[in-house]
This record gives sequence, C-alpha cells and structure tokens, in this order.
Amino acid sequence: MVDITDFTNTVLPAKERLWVHFSCLWILSFYGLYLLYQEYDEILVKRIQQLQKIRHRPDQFTILVREIPICSEHKARGCSVDHFFSKHYPYSYHSYQVVYKEKDLEVLLSQAESIARKIQYLRERPTANKHKRETLLLDGSREDAVKISLHEDSLQVFCEKIRQLQHESVIKQKELPVAFVIFKSRCGAALAAQSQQHSHPLLWITEMAPEPRDVSWRTLAIPYRILPLYKIGVVLAASLLTIFFAIPVTAVQGIAKYEKLKKWFPPVMAVELIPGLSSVVTGYLPSVILKGFIYIVPFAMFGMAKLPGCISKSKEEIKACNMVFYFLVGNVFFLSVLSGSLLDEIGESFSHPKNFPSHLASAVSAQADFFMTYILTDGLSGFSLEILLPGLLFWDVIKSHTVGRGTEKDPYLYSLPYFRIIPMVSLSVLIGTVYAVVTPLLLPFLIGYFCLGYLVFINQIQDVYAIVYETCGQYWPYIHHYILVAIVLMQITMIGLFGLKSMPAASISTIPLLLLTLMFNEYCKKRFLPTFHHYSIQNVVEHDELDAKSSQMEVNYEDVINAYCSPCLRPVNFLASESSSTQPLVCSSSL
Amino acid sequence: MVDITDFTNTVLPAKERLWVHFSCLWILSFYGLYLLYQEYDEILVKRIQQLQKIRHRPDQFTILVREIPICSEHKARGCSVDHFFSKHYPYSYHSYQVVYKEKDLEVLLSQAESIARKIQYLRERPTANKHKRETLLLDGSREDAVKISLHEDSLQVFCEKIRQLQHESVIKQKELPVAFVIFKSRCGAALAAQSQQHSHPLLWITEMAPEPRDVSWRTLAIPYRILPLYKIGVVLAASLLTIFFAIPVTAVQGIAKYEKLKKWFPPVMAVELIPGLSSVVTGYLPSVILKGFIYIVPFAMFGMAKLPGCISKSKEEIKACNMVFYFLVGNVFFLSVLSGSLLDEIGESFSHPKNFPSHLASAVSAQADFFMTYILTDGLSGFSLEILLPGLLFWDVIKSHTVGRGTEKDPYLYSLPYFRIIPMVSLSVLIGTVYAVVTPLLLPFLIGYFCLGYLVFINQIQDVYAIVYETCGQYWPYIHHYILVAIVLMQITMIGLFGLKSMPAASISTIPLLLLTLMFNEYCKKRFLPTFHHYSIQNVVEHDELDAKSSQMEVNYEDVINAYCSPCLRPVNFLASESSSTQPLVCSSSL
Repeated sequence: MVDITDFTNTVLPAKERLWVHFSCLWILSFYGLYLLYQEYDEILVKRIQQLQKIRHRPDQFTILVREIPICSEHKARGCSVDHFFSKHYPYSYHSYQVVYKEKDLEVLLSQAESIARKIQYLRERPTANKHKRETLLLDGSREDAVKISLHEDSLQVFCEKIRQLQHESVIKQKELPVAFVIFKSRCGAALAAQSQQHSHPLLWITEMAPEPRDVSWRTLAIPYRILPLYKIGVVLAASLLTIFFAIPVTAVQGIAKYEKLKKWFPPVMAVELIPGLSSVVTGYLPSVILKGFIYIVPFAMFGMAKLPGCISKSKEEIKACNMVFYFLVGNVFFLSVLSGSLLDEIGESFSHPKNFPSHLASAVSAQADFFMTYILTDGLSGFSLEILLPGLLFWDVIKSHTVGRGTEKDPYLYSLPYFRIIPMVSLSVLIGTVYAVVTPLLLPFLIGYFCLGYLVFINQIQDVYAIVYETCGQYWPYIHHYILVAIVLMQITMIGLFGLKSMPAASISTIPLLLLTLMFNEYCKKRFLPTFHHYSIQNVVEHDELDAKSSQMEVNYEDVINAYCSPCLRPVNFLASESSSTQPLVCSSSL
Repeated sequence: MVDITDFTNTVLPAKERLWVHFSCLWILSFYGLYLLYQEYDEILVKRIQQLQKIRHRPDQFTILVREIPICSEHKARGCSVDHFFSKHYPYSYHSYQVVYKEKDLEVLLSQAESIARKIQYLRERPTANKHKRETLLLDGSREDAVKISLHEDSLQVFCEKIRQLQHESVIKQKELPVAFVIFKSRCGAALAAQSQQHSHPLLWITEMAPEPRDVSWRTLAIPYRILPLYKIGVVLAASLLTIFFAIPVTAVQGIAKYEKLKKWFPPVMAVELIPGLSSVVTGYLPSVILKGFIYIVPFAMFGMAKLPGCISKSKEEIKACNMVFYFLVGNVFFLSVLSGSLLDEIGESFSHPKNFPSHLASAVSAQADFFMTYILTDGLSGFSLEILLPGLLFWDVIKSHTVGRGTEKDPYLYSLPYFRIIPMVSLSVLIGTVYAVVTPLLLPFLIGYFCLGYLVFINQIQDVYAIVYETCGQYWPYIHHYILVAIVLMQITMIGLFGLKSMPAASISTIPLLLLTLMFNEYCKKRFLPTFHHYSIQNVVEHDELDAKSSQMEVNYEDVINAYCSPCLRPVNFLASESSSTQPLVCSSSL
C-alpha cells in the first residue's frame, strides 16, 4: 500500500516524494473547488428551470405569515390579516387562509379512522376466511354484523362531533397567529415574502410558503417566541448525543462480549455446540451493536429536528441531515481516528488547538486500513440493507401484529430517508477526500462503493420510495458544505503531516490554500445561496408573463385557496368511501 | 478606597463582602440590560417619528442599484436600468440617474476652482490693503488687472473644457454600473430595495439610497467585485495598527526622555535654565506623545474606513467609529491593564484562553488608580481640547499658509467627528462599567466627567459643528454594542476575580449571567436591528398615505430627479458668482 508512513525510513526520497504529495494536494484542492463551483452553477440553473416548470404550484403564489396580532375591532386574527395586506399590497393581495389549532380535531379524526378501519376489517373477514370456517359462517357473520352496526353508530357520533368542531363558528375560536396569504401574482408574493412588514420586526414575519403537501401543520402551532429556546435545546441535545454517544455504546459492547454474556445469560452456551459459531459471535456482536446504534441515530435526530418548528417537512429533514452528518464525522471518522483515550485527546485538542493538525495527521495515517475495511463492509452491508429495508420490514411486522392488526393489507409507501442516506454518502466522500493524498490506494475501493451506491439508489428512487415533496435542489448547498468540510479536513491533515515529517516550509505554504478554500466558501455563499432561499423578482415576473400570455393567471390563484386548507378541516367521509383509507398514505397527503 | 484587593487580609468578612459584590454584579447587569432595552426601544420610536417628519427627503423614494449589466442592444447601462425596472416594477418605477466616472471632471473642476479663488483674491486685495500701500496702488492694480485678465482667460478655457466633458454624448461613454432608481412611491422603493432582483445575486444589487448630501460619490466608482478584497485589507490593516501600535509609541517615548534628548538635541539644555521646567518636561513629554498618537489614530482609521467602498459618508464614519473603539479598548484599556510584558500576556491568553478571566481580574484590580487619573486628566484635558479644537486650528493655520493662501477669509465649518468622540466616551463607559463592582469609588469621578462632557458637547453640537447628514439614529446600535461589550467585560473580570479569591461557587454562578447577557444581545439584534437597516412596509405605506391625502406625491418624486445628480455634473458658474465660493463648505454640499 502506498502509505505515507512507509517513507520515514529513507530520508531524502521521502522528502522529495512529500513535495509530490504537496503538489497533489494543491491540484486536488483546486480541482475539487472547480468541480464544486461547476456543480453549484449547474444545479442553480436546473433549479431555476424546475421552478419554471412547476410554476403553477400553489406555493409560488403564497406566503406564510406568522405572529399576526389580533385585530382590536373584531377580536380576530383573520380580519387583521385581511386589513393589513389589502392596505399594504392593494394591487397583488388576493385572500388568506388562517391556520387553526387542531389538536382536538386530530385526536377525534384518528379515533374515527381506527373505527372505520375496524369496520372495514370486519366486513372483509368473512370473505377472506370463507373456506376455513364455513361451519362457523352463520354464527360468525351474525356476530360480525352486530359489531359492525355498533361500530357504525359510534363512527356516526364521531363524524357528527368532527363536523361540529369543523363548523366555522367553533373553529374561529381556535385561530393561531399563523396564516397563508395568497397573492394574485408570483411577483407580489415574492416581494411580500422578502420585505420587512412592520417596524416591530417580530410581528408579521413573512416567508415563502412551502408546498401544501410539505407543510408541517403540527409545528405551525408552536408559538414563534418559544422557538429560539427549542432551537437551543435541540442543538444542545444533538451535541451531547454526538459527544457522549461513544460511552454507552462502548459499555454495551463490553457487556456483549462472549465471556460476559455466558455469565449473565447462560443459554448463550448453546452457541458452543456449533463449531466456529462462537468466534463469529465474538467477532461480530460488538460491531453489530455499533451498527445498530448508528442505524437508530438518524431517526432520533429526525425526531429532534421536528421540535424546533421548521415550517416544512423538507426543512426538518435537512436539519436532521445536518445533525446526522456531524454525528457521523464525530463518531465514525474522529472516533476511529482518535481511538483509544478519546476524551483525553479531545480535551488536549481544545486546550492546545495548535497541536490539532499534527495529532490528526498521525492518527489519520495510522487508520487507512481501518477505513478501507469500513468502506468495503459498509458498501456491501449498507447497500444490501438499503435494498432489503430491514428497518421498515421489522417496523411493519411489529405494527401489523400490535396496533394495526386490521390493516395488514394496506400498501405502505415511504419517502427516501435523505437524513439517513446523504450523511452516510457524505461521510464516504469525506474519508475519500482526506485519504486521497495520504493513501490514494483507498480511492478504487471508494469508486466501487459509489458505483454500487449509484445503482442501488437509482433503483430505490425509481421503484421503491415515493416522492412526498420537491425542494428544487435545496439539499445541494448542504452537500456542498459537507464536501467543503472534507476538503478543509484534508488540508488540515496535510498541514499536520508535513509538520510531522519535519517539512515546515510545506506545512506553512498549505495555510494559504486553506484560507483560499474558506474564501471560496464565502464567495459561493454570496454567489449562489440567496437564489436557493428566495425567488428572484426577475424569475417570478418571467413566470407571471408566461402565464399572462396564456391567460392562466386567474386559474392559478383560484386553485391555491383550497390547497392550503389543513387536512383536519376537510369534510369527513368515512362511511361513503371506506376504501379511501386503503390508499397509500402518500396519496392522501399529496393533494 | 473601597478596593476589593484590601479584603484579602481578613478572610471571613472578605468572603461575605464578596457575596455582596456578587449580588451587586447581578443587579447592575440586569439594570444595565434593562436600561439598554428601554433606550433601544425609545430610540427606535424616535427614529420612526423622525423618518415620518423627513418623509419628503428624496432618499425615501430612491434606491441605489449596483452591478448593472450592459444592455446588449444599445450598449449602455442606462437603458438597461430602464428596461429592467419598467418591466419588473411597472406600477411604481419612475426614472433613473446613472452615476458616471468623473475623475477627469473632478480634477478640472478643482483646478478651475483654484483659479477662480486666485481671481477673487486679486480682486479683493487692493481694497483690503488700500491704506498701507497707497503709493503702490497704481502699479499694483495695473499689474493685478493684467493677472486677473490672464487668469480669467484660462478659467474660460477650463470652463469650456468642463462643459464639453459634461456634454451628454461624452459623459455617456463613462457610465459606471451604478445608478439611482427613483420610484413613484416610498413603498415601491422599499420593496425593491429589500428583494433579490436577479437569479444571479451579484447582479442588480439594490439597497436604499443614502441622503443626496451623504452620498460618497468617490467610492461608488470602485467596482463592487473588488470591495471584499478592500474590506479584508482594511480589517487587516486596522488589526495590525491596533495590535502593534504600542511598539513605535513606546520607542518614541523612549527617545523622548530628557537624558536622551539632551544627547541627541543639545539645545534642549535651555530648559534647565528655568527651575522646575525640566521635571515637568520629563514627566509630561511621554504622555503628550502618547496623547498625540492617540489623537491622530481616529483620522488614520477614518482614512482607512473610506477605502472599502461604503456608499455614504455616514457609513464610513460608523465604520471608523468601530475601528477606533476597538483600538482604544486594545490600546488604552488592555494596554494599561496588562502593562509590562504586553505581548507575552496576550500570547499567554491565546494559548490558554481559560486563564484569561483570572489574568484580567488581577490586572484590573491593580489598575484602579491609574484609570481614576486617566478619567480626571482626560476629562479636563480632553474636553478643553474639544472646545479649543487645537487640531482644526493647527490644520487651518498650516493650510492657510501653504496651499490655500488666497482663501484665508473663507469661513470653515466641520461636522462633528463622531468617529473620534463616540469611541472616547464609550471607553469611559467601559472603564466605569468594569470598575462599577470592583472599585465603586471611581464612579463619582465618572459622573463628573459625563456631566462636563454633556455640557461641552451640547455647546459644540449647537454652536460649533454643522450637521452634514442625518442618519435617524443609525449610531445607536453601535453604541449599544459598545456598552454590551463593557458589561460582558465586567462579568468576565468578576468571574476571574471570584476565582482569584477562591470562590469557585460565585465564579461558576456568574457564567449563566454571561450567557444571559449574550442571549439578550441576540434578542436585541432580532427585535430592533432590522428596523434600523430597512424601512418597514407598514411605515412607508403610512407615509405614502399621508402624502396622498395632501396630494403631495407628484411633487415629491419630481423633486428627487435633480437631487441625485453628481456635484461634478452641475452647470459651472465661476465667473457669474464668485462669491459662492466663500460660502461655507457645508452649504455647498447640502442641497
């Protein structure tokens, strides 16, 4: 293996070869930055094209307004919204849709749904089990009929209750200070979303609305003023999980050692009956436990990311994605690299930040073999797991045997868990980048990994997962950031390595490269990021003009009004078409 | 003096009294934050009222657009602006005013002005010196008449040249990618200023225009793409000046010692002839040199702040203000506190950031006497210097004897040098806040200082300095920040001090206070700052409605068109009314 640590024996050639590494570092860094720029540029163009293609989507006409004060005259927030926007945007304002507190309704709806499911189950049972218990048919069907009529009565009561709660006069009492405001033109919406409405900047907070199917209705109910506290809490919790994750895992791994297991749980002795199995168990059990923990973490992070009140599900997933990436960098990359007395090393790095590069360099060059194995095993096991979806399978089996016993026939569809997949792939990119100069022999393995991953994910995206929202490339800035973190880590490692090999000249001349990379990052933030966060006026006016030519504008914003009606406020029809509950979950949430 | 260092002798009472200090710290911090909040709130209200009062000012209708691409059809930027804004803001766009490159014109104008001044001087001389040289009158006046006619001829030539350059066809060649765009309503301008115009966010950059008299025409000519490099350069230069300022000053002070002076410059011996003078010189000379250097620094910083291309003079001054404040904190507060081996101490702090509070605490409590003296001398000398304006006096004497010999009769008016005064006063606030808990006896002196300062500055603002721009409270957020830095420093000092007095409980329970203070700062940034940077839609619509009622809108935006014409492009009239050049400078720049 072309490992840099082999060079230490022969002094002169090593130094010369280090200069080769040095130039490789510069070339790789610049090529990496060039590719990143190209990719950002291309994705931006694609985003703009996609936005034009889906320009009839309701979210282009809508803004989300938060912290609406109560109208002093009518004691309602709805009329306050109407007053405010008809006064300040007289030409472009169209209508509004206030968001209501729907906790009670949600509970009632879920209860009604479960009863409807039971009725469905009872109705279908006789036909399904006809052959087996023909003798019991008469009794059974009579019993079932009684049950069904009982359930139908209670469902009737529930529906009545729900309709009462959905009535305008009742729901008006439960206004939240949140509303969707619909404009007559995309331009009006974009202008209103990007400007400060009130001299008190924490009132009338506006932003572009997410897609209707992407709206996170639950979090809109959280008061805006509490959100910063939630955010701090989640950041703290995620950091603590990242930093102290190693401790319980190591403890559990310790207990899971074969000798200890024998002591605590004697039936394990049975393993010894099959020759060879015991060594497999001893070797793999700790690793399986680690994998299991790491498999659960993304879902825990996703649960946490839901707390700080992102207005859309896509933003929650992006937030989770970020947290998982830093978790993996901390717990897979750094933990493996700094294995041993981890906390001591971290404490060392904090109190002597100057020594960090050299620590990192010596640790990185020692761990090349480990990461090669990691990529191989993760490539083989990870992608096969991805195809088999063991987690979802397991989850579904549990669900069908406990809670939703009557629903085993429901087809289920899940969205691509970006927050689990993107950080994993980004971690591989990071490992590849850091080792690209130190141990280039790792790269072919990585190419194999990515090729396999490409095949797997193309299959999964096309055939397995369903699309539940469209962000038009909102994920790219984050992936760009992850790759940039990888390049910066590579440079820091090399600074340390040149220092270790007593080449201070090379070490010092890498620092400008690091500064250049950071400046490139700042430039990209200014050059591309704003267009990922806002609609530019030029684009929205273009879309408006395209529609005006085909005189579609009226149609567009008339469609929008119903799109942002909360799912709880739609008319209930459990009895009329129970079959609707057997439709995939995705379709019911996509309007 | 109630110095905390006196407590060390008697152990128990000292500890008890330290708890008094601890509660004082909390009370003072909270009261400080409360006052800061109140003040911010009040100033925000005043800003909104003032904006309403001056709503007819042209800058409320105007935005500044930078990085305008060239129109491919007409090869001009002007028509590009017109196309863009009439397409995207069809209802509110009114007109535009492109900015031109005026370097040549500026040079010619200044030359023409100096000639006009010479003519003025020659014309007025005979009348002024009539009595003294009546015999020479005939010869002199004849000679003068010849000179005047010569000068008038050359002035004629200059004026012709200037008029040629000002001609539309010539000036069109020198378009800069910068324009002022005028809207029909304040609302249109505010919306356009706050939104992203183009999908390439580094094109069509919009922001609210500054007041016409506040526009920094010179910096508008700097290409926008170079500005970040300028900014980095200026930040680097200012940091280097702040960090290494002590070295040359100490060196000069060393040379200026009496013994060395005698060696290098023997005439100084004459001082010994007057008894007592030598000791005064020995004692005060180094201090005078330090004062002199510190007096010059704000002007150097102001010169630097002009480089990174702020669009208005007020922003340049605010930038200078910031740099001078940090300079003073570094070179007066920390340098005095950490006197001795300064660089060693700083290096120590960087490599062991944890020890910083205790270092600071021990140094701060030792230097109370010095700062008491500092405030007394600065109060007496600083304010008397402020009233006498020695710098301006000196500068004017130099100017009138070298460059502008003909202009000695010109009245001159200067604007309040905020960038010199605000940091000085803020430094006193900082010293007072840091010592408020440690050595409260310093506070009466400080109150005296502020009372004197109030009187002096009220006088200066009312009678001496002229107002050259109106920012409507834009300085407050910075002063708020300085006071917050003071409170944070106080808390860090106390954390260190409690640690030194071996009271870790008090030390640790001060940390939440520090975090609370930082969170308060974040809240204030969200609550107040946006309204200092943008006009809120609610306010501008209010102003528009007020004007619409009195049907003044048309008048308003018709006025604006001429307001943003560059001073170099106004018609020249040196010969018609030479007396205009004797008007105060301020009036010629205030339109």
